[in-house]
Amino acid sequence: MQRHFDEDLRNLNANIIKMASLAEDAIQNATRALKDQDPALARTVINNDQQIDEMELFIEEQAIDLLARMQPMASDLRFITTGMKINAELERIADLAVNIAHRVLELSGMPHLKPLVDIPKLSALTSSMVKNAIDAFVNHDESIARKVILSDSEVDQLNNVIRQELVNDYMIKDSKTVTRAVPLLLIARHLERIGDHATNIAEDVIYMVHAKIVKHHPEKLDDGQSI
Amino acid sequence: MQRHFDEDLRNLNANIIKMASLAEDAIQNATRALKDQDPALARTVINNDQQIDEMELFIEEQAIDLLARMQPMASDLRFITTGMKINAELERIADLAVNIAHRVLELSGMPHLKPLVDIPKLSALTSSMVKNAIDAFVNHDESIARKVILSDSEVDQLNNVIRQELVNDYMIKDSKTVTRAVPLLLIARHLERIGDHATNIAEDVIYMVHAKIVKHHPEKLDDGQSI
Repeated sequence: MQRHFDEDLRNLNANIIKMASLAEDAIQNATRALKDQDPALARTVINNDQQIDEMELFIEEQAIDLLARMQPMASDLRFITTGMKINAELERIADLAVNIAHRVLELSGMPHLKPLVDIPKLSALTSSMVKNAIDAFVNHDESIARKVILSDSEVDQLNNVIRQELVNDYMIKDSKTVTRAVPLLLIARHLERIGDHATNIAEDVIYMVHAKIVKHHPEKLDDGQSI
Repeated sequence: MQRHFDEDLRNLNANIIKMASLAEDAIQNATRALKDQDPALARTVINNDQQIDEMELFIEEQAIDLLARMQPMASDLRFITTGMKINAELERIADLAVNIAHRVLELSGMPHLKPLVDIPKLSALTSSMVKNAIDAFVNHDESIARKVILSDSEVDQLNNVIRQELVNDYMIKDSKTVTRAVPLLLIARHLERIGDHATNIAEDVIYMVHAKIVKHHPEKLDDGQSI
């Protein structure tokens, strides 16, 4: 029974890693579609989302099945419930990549407003946050999780820089740029949300790791100081 | 034991309802702050978010504790895991209300671009979707959940109308409106995301209700046609 359980847990783990890698691919492909003005690649991102949605349901079923069959206690229980939360975050991340892909289609046929530098940078940053947050989960590594959370202010800052530039240097100066600037502004916002979801995952990991440690000190959980 | 369990489940239920009502208040207050140009009310929405974050953690602990102590099977297990997912959605909804409040602060001191009609309408629509999605959960009512999902296309449409109007009738025609139009465009987008989260809750409810029904027909879950 225990061996089965360990195997099932490893399997859940592997599926979450696979789900994360699909979500990262979606972010990277959506950004490449933007940079290369490649509507076909944008459509691929949109079409691939169904696979990710199905994978989310599959992982959720797997987790609920584990809870029902194995009735795990303590740290295993928390690992599984955290896995379920992370699974939902990854599905949202992939949805945001789909949103980016839709914006790319809106921009289709129009020349780039400017050479894109900050948006690909923001994309790379948020994509690596997702990767690191999943690494933190798989390795129960609080320090990686904390780094992910620290990156989030960099994301917010970069998003603000992009927004200010689009508004002040383009839209206000030349209203003919609005049609091309608004989708870029929304893409930056989608990426910023991806950073938020990666941060949520990192916070979940810290909570998971910490809850194990403070298990015998429940008073630490009461004052909200546990995280 | 069973009586305790039923009481604990009812308690979890009551807390999720309370959490939902805090999230609805946040949406409504953020929208009122926008309409009435009331930065103090916007700040209240931002400050109240900590209480909602703490409530999310409390409900999650309560659910994990129920899973650990009661080791529920079948429909109770699924009710609890669905409650955990909904809890996370409600926290995101409140976060989006906070985002709206930040946009209201950005607009502070500037006259309204135009009398606001569609944004309050969008806000009322998404707020009622949240309310109905929670009703569907509490009453295991698939038909209410389906209505919530149907409303989501109305939300998307209204968001598009608002965006097109801001871009075509204001920003492109008069670049002096950009500074006031961009926050409105983002507020409409935040509200549209709230509609997405309400839809997620409704989908979770249908999945929960349906999984109970198809429990003895697992083949219905395999082909992805179960929802």
